[in-house]
Amino acid sequence: MMTWNVITYTEDVSRWQPGARERLERAAIELFAAQGFAATTVPQITARAGLTTRTFFRHFADKREVLFGGGEIPEFAAQIIADAPASLDPITLIVGGLQIVAETRFAGRRDEFRQRRAIIRSDEGLRERDLSKRAALAQVIRDGFVGRGIDARTAALLADSSVTVLNVALDEWLDSGDDDRTLFEIILDALQSLRAALASPELTPSSPRG
Amino acid sequence: MMTWNVITYTEDVSRWQPGARERLERAAIELFAAQGFAATTVPQITARAGLTTRTFFRHFADKREVLFGGGEIPEFAAQIIADAPASLDPITLIVGGLQIVAETRFAGRRDEFRQRRAIIRSDEGLRERDLSKRAALAQVIRDGFVGRGIDARTAALLADSSVTVLNVALDEWLDSGDDDRTLFEIILDALQSLRAALASPELTPSSPRG
Repeated sequence: MMTWNVITYTEDVSRWQPGARERLERAAIELFAAQGFAATTVPQITARAGLTTRTFFRHFADKREVLFGGGEIPEFAAQIIADAPASLDPITLIVGGLQIVAETRFAGRRDEFRQRRAIIRSDEGLRERDLSKRAALAQVIRDGFVGRGIDARTAALLADSSVTVLNVALDEWLDSGDDDRTLFEIILDALQSLRAALASPELTPSSPRG
Repeated sequence: MMTWNVITYTEDVSRWQPGARERLERAAIELFAAQGFAATTVPQITARAGLTTRTFFRHFADKREVLFGGGEIPEFAAQIIADAPASLDPITLIVGGLQIVAETRFAGRRDEFRQRRAIIRSDEGLRERDLSKRAALAQVIRDGFVGRGIDARTAALLADSSVTVLNVALDEWLDSGDDDRTLFEIILDALQSLRAALASPELTPSSPRG
């Protein structure tokens, strides 16, 4: 159970970065990067992580899932939304949720996520799974917003926009070299860019044709 | 070559709805709906449409592609963006482009697109291809915006948002019963909803933690 104080988050981070999961992820990424995704087996990953295959399969359905957090982020998003105070407006909730995800999931792991992205980009099946994961995350956020009484259309638009902002910011963070902005700072910049880009000019559609 | 007059569009629509392509699409959707996607063959589709398999493969790489317009929409989007006057702001371009797509691709074909959506939803592989198609469309829009001198971040955000607005509006149009709003009217409503949802409140992130 998370305690919300507007967008401050006080739960013990360890729940979301369990040692075994993170060790398996790091070992897998290193092996995928060194010898290729196809050539890497689950026993090789567990041997490198010093864990059993049984532990592996408690966290991940297969070796592809290691690249996508094993369903962790959608579950996490669902819980953040469920635990947020009913009075919290959706934008503050999105910003707070993205902050938690950025700080607990990504911060301090930029090189690892760079490798992860390169591996995903190298394989058609992985790219497809990446798209499915993004869609699944958007669906969870949308359902969470609908559960908070937000109309279905706005819930769908905000859910997709949240995933867009996260992914655009993530790419920018991973592409940046000496940039010392945090991922969360880039997320805030990206959200402001989206608002600014959509805000002008006023919509003046032409009169309907025919 | 399209002639642009802000967002009015004067090209002969037939280029974008060639008789053969549309007949193949209608025949395929009818067969998929009646006997299932897996059980339907290309020769059955061409027989029903009164066309040859050679014509089929000139328009579509395989029978899955019939459900996704055979790459037509991304090509179309690229051309709309390339042909738009350099002075056109991105939002007007998006609205104009979505209007053209709505009126030339979707208008008058609601029942057919309802069947199409039901078939796509029924099959995991088709759902994945649908996501790939959306991503490909976003990529084309993004590249087009970058080609117009828009910064990479804004181009990415606007491209994803365009695809989001189109898809949210499309679902609303397909779900609506007696609603006599056109798809383009719903697109405008959805864009306004997105702007409104993102516009408030002001972003007031908490001070950085730790």
